[in-house]
Amino acid sequence: MVVRPVREDKFSFGLWTVGWQAVDPFGGATRGPLDPVEAVHKLSELGAWGITFHDDDLIPFGSSDSAREAQIKRFRAALDDTGLVVPMVTTNLFGQPVFKDGALTNNDRDIRRYALRKVMRNMDLAAELGASTYVLWGGREGSETDAAKDVRAAYDRYREGIDTLAQYVLDQGYGLRLALEPKPNEPRGDIFLPTIGHALAFISQLEHHEMVGLNPEVGHEQMAGLNFVHGIGQALWQDKLFHIDLNGQRGPRYDQDLIFGHGDLLSAFFLVDLLENGGYDGPRHFDYKPLRTEDADGVWASAAANMSSYLLLRERARAYRADPRVREALAASRVPELATSTLAPGETPADLKADRSAFEDFDAEAAGRRGYGFAALSQLAFEHAVGAA
Amino acid sequence: MVVRPVREDKFSFGLWTVGWQAVDPFGGATRGPLDPVEAVHKLSELGAWGITFHDDDLIPFGSSDSAREAQIKRFRAALDDTGLVVPMVTTNLFGQPVFKDGALTNNDRDIRRYALRKVMRNMDLAAELGASTYVLWGGREGSETDAAKDVRAAYDRYREGIDTLAQYVLDQGYGLRLALEPKPNEPRGDIFLPTIGHALAFISQLEHHEMVGLNPEVGHEQMAGLNFVHGIGQALWQDKLFHIDLNGQRGPRYDQDLIFGHGDLLSAFFLVDLLENGGYDGPRHFDYKPLRTEDADGVWASAAANMSSYLLLRERARAYRADPRVREALAASRVPELATSTLAPGETPADLKADRSAFEDFDAEAAGRRGYGFAALSQLAFEHAVGAA
Amino acid sequence: MVVRPVREDKFSFGLWTVGWQAVDPFGGATRGPLDPVEAVHKLSELGAWGITFHDDDLIPFGSSDSAREAQIKRFRAALDDTGLVVPMVTTNLFGQPVFKDGALTNNDRDIRRYALRKVMRNMDLAAELGASTYVLWGGREGSETDAAKDVRAAYDRYREGIDTLAQYVLDQGYGLRLALEPKPNEPRGDIFLPTIGHALAFISQLEHHEMVGLNPEVGHEQMAGLNFVHGIGQALWQDKLFHIDLNGQRGPRYDQDLIFGHGDLLSAFFLVDLLENGGYDGPRHFDYKPLRTEDADGVWASAAANMSSYLLLRERARAYRADPRVREALAASRVPELATSTLAPGETPADLKADRSAFEDFDAEAAGRRGYGFAALSQLAFEHAVGAA
Amino acid sequence: MVVRPVREDKFSFGLWTVGWQAVDPFGGATRGPLDPVEAVHKLSELGAWGITFHDDDLIPFGSSDSAREAQIKRFRAALDDTGLVVPMVTTNLFGQPVFKDGALTNNDRDIRRYALRKVMRNMDLAAELGASTYVLWGGREGSETDAAKDVRAAYDRYREGIDTLAQYVLDQGYGLRLALEPKPNEPRGDIFLPTIGHALAFISQLEHHEMVGLNPEVGHEQMAGLNFVHGIGQALWQDKLFHIDLNGQRGPRYDQDLIFGHGDLLSAFFLVDLLENGGYDGPRHFDYKPLRTEDADGVWASAAANMSSYLLLRERARAYRADPRVREALAASRVPELATSTLAPGETPADLKADRSAFEDFDAEAAGRRGYGFAALSQLAFEHAVGAA
Repeated sequence: MVVRPVREDKFSFGLWTVGWQAVDPFGGATRGPLDPVEAVHKLSELGAWGITFHDDDLIPFGSSDSAREAQIKRFRAALDDTGLVVPMVTTNLFGQPVFKDGALTNNDRDIRRYALRKVMRNMDLAAELGASTYVLWGGREGSETDAAKDVRAAYDRYREGIDTLAQYVLDQGYGLRLALEPKPNEPRGDIFLPTIGHALAFISQLEHHEMVGLNPEVGHEQMAGLNFVHGIGQALWQDKLFHIDLNGQRGPRYDQDLIFGHGDLLSAFFLVDLLENGGYDGPRHFDYKPLRTEDADGVWASAAANMSSYLLLRERARAYRADPRVREALAASRVPELATSTLAPGETPADLKADRSAFEDFDAEAAGRRGYGFAALSQLAFEHAVGAA
Repeated sequence: MVVRPVREDKFSFGLWTVGWQAVDPFGGATRGPLDPVEAVHKLSELGAWGITFHDDDLIPFGSSDSAREAQIKRFRAALDDTGLVVPMVTTNLFGQPVFKDGALTNNDRDIRRYALRKVMRNMDLAAELGASTYVLWGGREGSETDAAKDVRAAYDRYREGIDTLAQYVLDQGYGLRLALEPKPNEPRGDIFLPTIGHALAFISQLEHHEMVGLNPEVGHEQMAGLNFVHGIGQALWQDKLFHIDLNGQRGPRYDQDLIFGHGDLLSAFFLVDLLENGGYDGPRHFDYKPLRTEDADGVWASAAANMSSYLLLRERARAYRADPRVREALAASRVPELATSTLAPGETPADLKADRSAFEDFDAEAAGRRGYGFAALSQLAFEHAVGAA
Repeated sequence: MVVRPVREDKFSFGLWTVGWQAVDPFGGATRGPLDPVEAVHKLSELGAWGITFHDDDLIPFGSSDSAREAQIKRFRAALDDTGLVVPMVTTNLFGQPVFKDGALTNNDRDIRRYALRKVMRNMDLAAELGASTYVLWGGREGSETDAAKDVRAAYDRYREGIDTLAQYVLDQGYGLRLALEPKPNEPRGDIFLPTIGHALAFISQLEHHEMVGLNPEVGHEQMAGLNFVHGIGQALWQDKLFHIDLNGQRGPRYDQDLIFGHGDLLSAFFLVDLLENGGYDGPRHFDYKPLRTEDADGVWASAAANMSSYLLLRERARAYRADPRVREALAASRVPELATSTLAPGETPADLKADRSAFEDFDAEAAGRRGYGFAALSQLAFEHAVGAA
Repeated sequence: MVVRPVREDKFSFGLWTVGWQAVDPFGGATRGPLDPVEAVHKLSELGAWGITFHDDDLIPFGSSDSAREAQIKRFRAALDDTGLVVPMVTTNLFGQPVFKDGALTNNDRDIRRYALRKVMRNMDLAAELGASTYVLWGGREGSETDAAKDVRAAYDRYREGIDTLAQYVLDQGYGLRLALEPKPNEPRGDIFLPTIGHALAFISQLEHHEMVGLNPEVGHEQMAGLNFVHGIGQALWQDKLFHIDLNGQRGPRYDQDLIFGHGDLLSAFFLVDLLENGGYDGPRHFDYKPLRTEDADGVWASAAANMSSYLLLRERARAYRADPRVREALAASRVPELATSTLAPGETPADLKADRSAFEDFDAEAAGRRGYGFAALSQLAFEHAVGAA
């Protein structure tokens, strides 16, 4: 069943996704390079709304200034032709050998300075193209041996780097917010800011913490076996979900970047439910890789599949929320009761201590016997996920 | 080789560790109950410095007030006899059926109130016994299906709970700091505050964040495949390492609570190096389980083994830091250079942008060719870990 | 949507599943004991076809002979009343302290002998009740330290044990086949026969290998991050799928025993497709645990949910196989071509070597350019799984 | 501490290890190509005994016959100069786009035939160079979606392929044995023959099973969280350890190929103990990757580190086995008792059933109380591993 996306769905793709030539650790490219201009046109035809890129995706590393300008011009023309927007831009701080020990936390100070300049240069372009989010994925910030890094010094430098970039954005008057992207490992043995939690904690230490949030990726969190929906819930709770990378992953293993929905399907169902009903109105950005087995047709089929999967799950989530049996089951499980404060308005710890009904007269045994109805509730969710409710 | 611990080593054990009767999901107890008084004496003989407990470890759940007081009295006498201290106390909010859906984030408000009271009561005892740290492990805070919890409401309640308890400590004038203990899963399918990072992030949202820190556990972080040394590094960087749980784990699987050093040995080596050289002077607390195959002799042999392992690794770490070849290798890997600010004192983003040596004239290719010497450095660490350097 | 099972669906449950009292490593029972007679009646009402048990589930360990006989009699009466069958029986070789270091590979020879006798006794009962499969799960066969076992001696003893039991079945003329159940860890740190593969390999070394096969469990294989559908495919390929344990798991972590379908949903879809279309006609046996949060209603709701999930996925799998677009997509992906021999009938290696079209004249580059259409095919499967095709 | 290897240690390296140019999924090469002739000389200087290769490592894919012959000649001259041997050879069936859906189980029959020919051609060279083992790693045999493969057809083709190659070896009179290398995933989502167990099981189905064994790799088994020492134990038990790939890995994540010993150190200690004391006298082959951060010096430092780590652990294992306290602890843990048959010589199942001492009169409770002493034993092993015993 083809569900056609529309611009209002805010689907966006990275240039590096459909443009991935399928080099992996054990084999060379199976597809040729994709012209960014073609990517814009194709994605527009498929119903996408936005396109995103690393500097080096659009402009090959080492290009002359004139080649750079020419390429930007061609790209802008394609955007103008199609109406596609550039909601997010990011920097490649991981592909070139110079970044092999990281960028903002490289042991070499000169490389750290170079990395900052590379970001600043691309922020200029991001602002010029009207992006509102600037993503920073520190894929090479980390180590394979604990001997190689003084972790606290690394976090000092990481903070200095992000604060410097935030200051640059402010100084320039750019309308950009920064979004950090956590990942536990690969390509480094262990990466700094390994999860949503570690990145949120780091942000709390920044000078300009208010303009820095997250760009969490489904598969990255699942590589650590963590519940992505819970992570997104915490990010929303801290008002830090600035952007999101949707894809699929099959648990702790290499970074698979499958089509959204083709990994943990039930988690994808609950994720869409949370995004649609949780107040997130940013881009639905796909950061996936078309399988190495695919040719160009497969690339575009997979791009369409990401959007189609999302829309199908959105239908399922809407039906789930609208189902009176679900509302009943939620109430039976006392899910809404969690929104009620534990203390009464104005109640102090002393008041609570004086309330004998809370402890001395509380029948803990009886409370322990009551069932929560989670089996019935989760089965309703399962049935909605498989379109059977 | 028996390395004898002394009090100054600050080794402490939970009552529930040596007292574990070895009930697991597939089998009943293989050991009888251990009298807390005997535990105090035995641990003291072995050279431990402190003992810790959950309320229900010391005083069986449901005891009368008089039985409770009698037991506390016996316990205090044993402490006085031996000189053992109680540096940390915690609450069992997971064992009784009443907490089967959690305590501070239970969907049932009455249970949340009851849980707060249970903690408050035990805080009184903690203060009375001179503890300085109060640990909160929310082992039942979580879910098996994403349908069962509104994650943001759950975090609202979690924050309310911790803020209430912190206020209680302040109101009472207790000298306690709170330490949250993260864990990704087990006994719940997914637990809130799954990692060091998520817990640090949560703390940043608390009213009394300054008095709340972490009690990270080796195995918990490794259950998510995360680098514990990096996590502790971040916790130290944020001044939040209030306490630590040492044990062993063999990667993502059930919570093993092995003897310290018997899991990821290299990580244990680097952990001891960080604790000893990183400014942490709190307790070295073992939260392990003597194997279910062991009798009482095995219990005490394993308790001694935890301390012995730590002391052996401390020797190794000291030799590592003292080795001039290590210092040379660190310098060759430019590890100390990470402590230098990336920007010069007073340098602004604009200054950096104007520095052509940082970007336009920087030879990225040459910088990318230089090796970092991490192979040689990590081999030196390996040799020190195996006592061969 | 309630899909009602019928006897022909061959759904069976372990007594220990609906009867689980919810003791876990961090908490005591939340439910009372369930009378096996009640379990028979309830499961029959819900539409199940069979019931299975460990000896100690039906007859408490240490019962007198007369109590044992009385309990068997009551149980048989319930079976007769309801028409429920006992397709499979197994032994509890893990719960009692005597088995804390294993049964058939316990370091203690007397315990190994005792274990064999415990199995033999229950095989008598299995035969009496008409079971055709006898499952052996060696949950305690293993170790937490590699020092504790000589692995080759352990496999010698394991083989001796299974061969002895197979001989006993033959000597007694019982119509039983043995089915081994692999699991990677929990309750032991590492368990012998950790996966489908290791168990199949072990069987190839048995004297009576023809009467020994597998009872693989969804969650056990997924605890090692392995593809269960591939594992079942290999077991079927080797004619060794004697029985199956259906449930749900969310990747490498503790053994969750979730409701079937509530773990990796896409894998469950493909599993049902394989079982229904792959020639397996044995029991669909659920080995799950009702969540600890549930009361008796939740227990039976979850029992029904297992069957309902299976039936819904069976509908989805049938529609998938019947869809002409799927057949087209499979053909486009050349899936059926894998059934064709690589060599022609009678072709020798020398013939192949002489065939220049196979190598010298083969255009590897052109063959490398062709896409496989897996993106489109997998999206069709996704759409069928969510009921949208 | 530099421990110098000698030829008798039988250390060998793959050309692709020291020659790895460090292309990974997120970045390009950081090192230039390494001339195989230089590799031979350098490894010889470092004390290695053998060198191994994939066809495409030695002779670039697509080379002309004359270029091929010239390169072989140069390589042989280097071998002659240095005395290095070629104990093992293998085929690259994963790098070229033509193999993107696998080789022996590719859905495309022509590619399967081409793959067989590519192997046969390189087997000719292996025989010519005097190799005794021919490794087959089916890194691309697998899928990312279960829809893409009929698993049983895949195993039919896999068997046909291996049987054909074995027949070819026999027909040619080559003295080669085949060794299959299992891996769970990466570069495919799920790979066929994912573990030691699955591969051993597959071998049992081969026509020429007697000449096919295993080449297990430390990291591959640990990517599935499995105990490598147990796996090697089973492979030895089935007489199928034909070759071994030594390296390091830090649990379930991408394939790290760290220096041997730099992953799970305790497991490496027990592995060396098993290899040295378990009758394996084949090559100690390192299949690792020098970190991407390293230059040529780092490459050779890491090569030397692999051998040094092995030799240090061999010293530790020898001391462990020679320590009378270890022998006592093993006896106390009844480890040697596992070598005693469970049944007496000639004892039948009926005899066992008649032995009342085995069951009716056996005191299971008393047997359950006895401790196994594994805590003390494992601590002795720990102390030996860290050189402290």
